[in-house]
Amino acid sequence: MSITLSTRLRDVSGSAIRDLLALTARPEVISLAGGLPGTDLLPRERIAAALAKAAADPAAIQYGETAGLRPVREVLAARESERIGRAVAPTDVVVTSGSQQALDLVARALLDPGDPVVVEDPVYVGALQVFQAAGAALHAVPVDADGMAVDVLADRLAAGLRPRLVHTVSSFHNPRGATLSAPRRARLAELAERYGFLVVEDDPYGLLAFAGPPAPPVAGFGERVVRLSSASKILAPALRVGWLTGPAPLCAAVERLKQSTDLCTSSLTQLVAAELLADRAFLTAHLDRLRAALRERAAALTGAVAAVFGDAVTCSVPTGGMFCWVEFTDGTRPADLLPAALDRGVGYVPGTAFAVAKDLSAAARLCFASNPPGELHTAVERLGAAWRASAT
Amino acid sequence: MSITLSTRLRDVSGSAIRDLLALTARPEVISLAGGLPGTDLLPRERIAAALAKAAADPAAIQYGETAGLRPVREVLAARESERIGRAVAPTDVVVTSGSQQALDLVARALLDPGDPVVVEDPVYVGALQVFQAAGAALHAVPVDADGMAVDVLADRLAAGLRPRLVHTVSSFHNPRGATLSAPRRARLAELAERYGFLVVEDDPYGLLAFAGPPAPPVAGFGERVVRLSSASKILAPALRVGWLTGPAPLCAAVERLKQSTDLCTSSLTQLVAAELLADRAFLTAHLDRLRAALRERAAALTGAVAAVFGDAVTCSVPTGGMFCWVEFTDGTRPADLLPAALDRGVGYVPGTAFAVAKDLSAAARLCFASNPPGELHTAVERLGAAWRASAT
Repeated sequence: MSITLSTRLRDVSGSAIRDLLALTARPEVISLAGGLPGTDLLPRERIAAALAKAAADPAAIQYGETAGLRPVREVLAARESERIGRAVAPTDVVVTSGSQQALDLVARALLDPGDPVVVEDPVYVGALQVFQAAGAALHAVPVDADGMAVDVLADRLAAGLRPRLVHTVSSFHNPRGATLSAPRRARLAELAERYGFLVVEDDPYGLLAFAGPPAPPVAGFGERVVRLSSASKILAPALRVGWLTGPAPLCAAVERLKQSTDLCTSSLTQLVAAELLADRAFLTAHLDRLRAALRERAAALTGAVAAVFGDAVTCSVPTGGMFCWVEFTDGTRPADLLPAALDRGVGYVPGTAFAVAKDLSAAARLCFASNPPGELHTAVERLGAAWRASAT
Repeated sequence: MSITLSTRLRDVSGSAIRDLLALTARPEVISLAGGLPGTDLLPRERIAAALAKAAADPAAIQYGETAGLRPVREVLAARESERIGRAVAPTDVVVTSGSQQALDLVARALLDPGDPVVVEDPVYVGALQVFQAAGAALHAVPVDADGMAVDVLADRLAAGLRPRLVHTVSSFHNPRGATLSAPRRARLAELAERYGFLVVEDDPYGLLAFAGPPAPPVAGFGERVVRLSSASKILAPALRVGWLTGPAPLCAAVERLKQSTDLCTSSLTQLVAAELLADRAFLTAHLDRLRAALRERAAALTGAVAAVFGDAVTCSVPTGGMFCWVEFTDGTRPADLLPAALDRGVGYVPGTAFAVAKDLSAAARLCFASNPPGELHTAVERLGAAWRASAT
């Protein structure tokens, strides 16, 4: 039977990454491709205990309020107030089924087809798909080692660009690994005020800084910001608990749209997330362990890359999060190398998968979060073998 | 801060029902308003045990495949094959975050703004919102005691209507309580073949027949049907596990869209649903208990309505599901009566909330599922007191 798809869906990029993940799921492949937190680093036993507690409450297996359970919104509002440095009311928080849903709902609540939206280049592929599905007119602004090139954005705005939204993964960028510098954060918030756009600050990795406190959110510099975050990278993806905080009328619109989208997020998993996020002693200790392990993994990966590839590759210096970004300087094209790499048992995502307008054919994203150091060493050795074989 | 919403969201009905649910959540109110399964009838302890088992598997707290975990799709495919009477492949099943999400994804995958869609009148409000958000041109076909008036649909088709989708709640209709008769099912499937539309068979209540086997699905009469169902009404809403089965190209499109919508449904709750749905001994016993309790509740509610209102009201005769539909014959307008009813501690949904083109100002939806018989009696007595007071 032939099925005619909607015009918009025809415009959405097929996910090269998803196809790739199927290949890297083969047990003999060490995958640096996914954006998966290390399963071994997640607090599974504590989650199991909290689940048991939640399931003992009859109300927790029923439908819940569309915007999220009130006690959950209170915990999230308190945490966001602390992060942002001003009071966020529980009513200015909407709990979503992961922060991906928050992004989708924001786009659908605000965008008409043809509306201009600024995305980063390289871009978070999930954001690209959301804005394509919303029919937005995409404008790419490059990302460098200090995050989005806000000066380039400022030039475009001065030249007349009037986006409705500017999307940024502000800390430990996916895929670039970079963190938006404090001066750029301040300027971005200021530009939002001046030109009347909303910043979508997509911040799932912000608490994963290897050292020192997390960077102050863009939302701390101005009010024209909707912040998205998630329990997926710090507690567990399977909770499917994310959230957004932002201007009250936007939260109301997102809540209305969420009702027809999936009615509500699971009360069971919301209660688990709220319990663990409210338990400061647990959370501090857990995040300390998680960050230390990620730091060790990042060092293992970048050390192995330097040892194997020498100056044939430049590699970002991870300061947090899950990704490092490599660029070959010897003409190697990671998309071309990939089949040989998979044959040798290692997967990664070529930079071209994240390109909007830039030529990223020399780049690749490597995730250091999913595997322990020994596996990361082996993965890079396999990659080196594929690379050397391709050069001959 | 003022926020300009998307054109489409501005077209979506605010949910009168949602506003109403806030009022009926007051502890002194017995609510016949919600579409909530009885919390006391759900297998909470079995769910808790299955959750504990699922959470013992490290893979279950990680991201899962977008279309659903393979073993879960296998269980659902086996069940649907049995229901429909022909083989459904696991790849023709997509697991969603409740069947509401399945409906939203189908609409977004297939509809362009202005595309004609047939809905029932009275309509499931969640479907109305989905199709409004998709920008569809809505055409209403009345529902009577045998479900959608398929002869009326046939006349419209003969007169030139060419819908892309025809949405029906085929068994134990929300809000009308009616079940589409077998001849109408066959004819609807035949019309779909002849005119090239897809039937969206929304079937969350199909297993809740008070007596006898469930009606054969519309999908059993033809292949131009996408079937939606859910664990929410038989296991627990908080699992947020629904599913769709349908033509392979549609499943592929829905999977692609789901990726940007929420990445995946929780592996934890998917595993719980799959375990309980695959355990035939448990499920048979549980459904028998659930159906017997619902039958008792339906009898309590309709008995009380007959005793209190006599011939001032006609009441549907529930044969399954969760709802009965009353129509006042004495000029009472349930929307006008509602404030007095809430004051006396009973809530319901006026028929006007479900109207597309019909005048439903004499009707109301009463949910018999959420409360035990004693509460239902009290609720109807309170409603009778409000009604008598309004007549004087």
